[in-house]
Amino acid sequence: MKRSCTIPVRVYYQDTDAGGVVFHAQYLAFMERARTELLNEAGIDLARMAEETGAIFFVHEIRIRYHRPALLNELLNVSAEVVTMGRASFVFRQRVERNGELLVEADVSVATVHRGTKKPVRMPQVLSQAFSAQAAPGDA
Amino acid sequence: MKRSCTIPVRVYYQDTDAGGVVFHAQYLAFMERARTELLNEAGIDLARMAEETGAIFFVHEIRIRYHRPALLNELLNVSAEVVTMGRASFVFRQRVERNGELLVEADVSVATVHRGTKKPVRMPQVLSQAFSAQAAPGDA
Amino acid sequence: MKRSCTIPVRVYYQDTDAGGVVFHAQYLAFMERARTELLNEAGIDLARMAEETGAIFFVHEIRIRYHRPALLNELLNVSAEVVTMGRASFVFRQRVERNGELLVEADVSVATVHRGTKKPVRMPQVLSQAFSAQAAPGDA
Amino acid sequence: MKRSCTIPVRVYYQDTDAGGVVFHAQYLAFMERARTELLNEAGIDLARMAEETGAIFFVHEIRIRYHRPALLNELLNVSAEVVTMGRASFVFRQRVERNGELLVEADVSVATVHRGTKKPVRMPQVLSQAFSAQAAPGDA
Repeated sequence: MKRSCTIPVRVYYQDTDAGGVVFHAQYLAFMERARTELLNEAGIDLARMAEETGAIFFVHEIRIRYHRPALLNELLNVSAEVVTMGRASFVFRQRVERNGELLVEADVSVATVHRGTKKPVRMPQVLSQAFSAQAAPGDA
Repeated sequence: MKRSCTIPVRVYYQDTDAGGVVFHAQYLAFMERARTELLNEAGIDLARMAEETGAIFFVHEIRIRYHRPALLNELLNVSAEVVTMGRASFVFRQRVERNGELLVEADVSVATVHRGTKKPVRMPQVLSQAFSAQAAPGDA
Repeated sequence: MKRSCTIPVRVYYQDTDAGGVVFHAQYLAFMERARTELLNEAGIDLARMAEETGAIFFVHEIRIRYHRPALLNELLNVSAEVVTMGRASFVFRQRVERNGELLVEADVSVATVHRGTKKPVRMPQVLSQAFSAQAAPGDA
Repeated sequence: MKRSCTIPVRVYYQDTDAGGVVFHAQYLAFMERARTELLNEAGIDLARMAEETGAIFFVHEIRIRYHRPALLNELLNVSAEVVTMGRASFVFRQRVERNGELLVEADVSVATVHRGTKKPVRMPQVLSQAFSAQAAPGDA
């Protein structure tokens, strides 16, 4: 089963700021896209999961390091890998690269909470089955 | 009763792009802030209205003209005025100004739709009462 | 020579709002991506054009109509087509579709202005050559 | 001299996502607003600093913890405080609160880099003078 996913992301004007580089918060948006595609590839539709179980993702901690800026019109690779899996949370390791050069990296901890109450709930089985049975790290 | 509202908006890096100016779609975000504050001043809380009546706003047409760009760290005035009021829709006239100079203007047509079905619904009474009884245009 | 371009756009959480649909200003961001890819396919790199000629794009008018909302995780097709070409401006016709159904459409008028002064400048030759010699509309 | 700043931030539709809460990356945008206002209050204009010295801010590390979500139309207080000051970098401690309740907190490390080369440069004197002479932490 797939535990990581890499997507291409083009840098458009909308992603940049007056410093001529990608605005720092926008890398988190790029990373969300890669997490969602990883889930999609594992057969998990977040919208349907919310409908059926009431569970939505709540990001509870991010540590992000910026090494080099990405520029307008560059083509980036953005990856997401599940590195830790608990009863009500995950950690995704995420990287933004340009031609193999690491630009930005982050660990993103995500919990499952109830859509209405926003209280933590146990991870829906569809999620834990998709990711927890994995032993070998880094398989792409 | 108040039919128009003007708010100050500072331009931050997050609002700009690599051209050194505010990204064109971001003015629509500034305008949404002014519409919301106009509604708040009229005693209308969109979140509560959605809870109580199921009605949410659906923007159905915008015509926007950009005259001059706004730059980093400038302080803008963004206004919203209700200029037309129908049974299931409004038109807001909106302006972005810098020291009295018009930078961007738009007419934003908004309908009320049901949160679940996204079908048009009659405007909640709280809205029509707040705006429709007005005869004189332009009172601020 | 290519005068239109269609790109796939997935709807992520970052694109949606608390109404459960894509935030209305975000369609303009989707449309900017399609315009840029059209230019890229025509061999025009906006970053390089800005470096070499000082000319950047300035959006000066948009008329956008919203027919139906797009929802979380849907896969959209977003297109850009050059429909008018003047000495210092273009009009792009743009559409957002879901399985062939039209959700949002817009005419986006873009002028070329100088990066520093923000004054209108004649369109760089690379642009006018790429698009103006076209007679037949709608060739994709 | 002022080392901290708190600004009010209203939550608009543009800030929320289909989970009904503020999109996680958007808190970083709120925090950038508070940092900029802190600098403005200290007499530092980032746009002018970039013009005069070529130095711009480059965020190089963020650690952010999300405790509770903010909802549509809530009024938040977002603060920025300079807690560490080096020769070419700062750390800002930032908090997002709602009626005194801590929702989100972050440490944001920012370096000064050259606008063109994106290489680290010594902090402009105007910045180091504004913040480094401070002994007592936490004065607001």
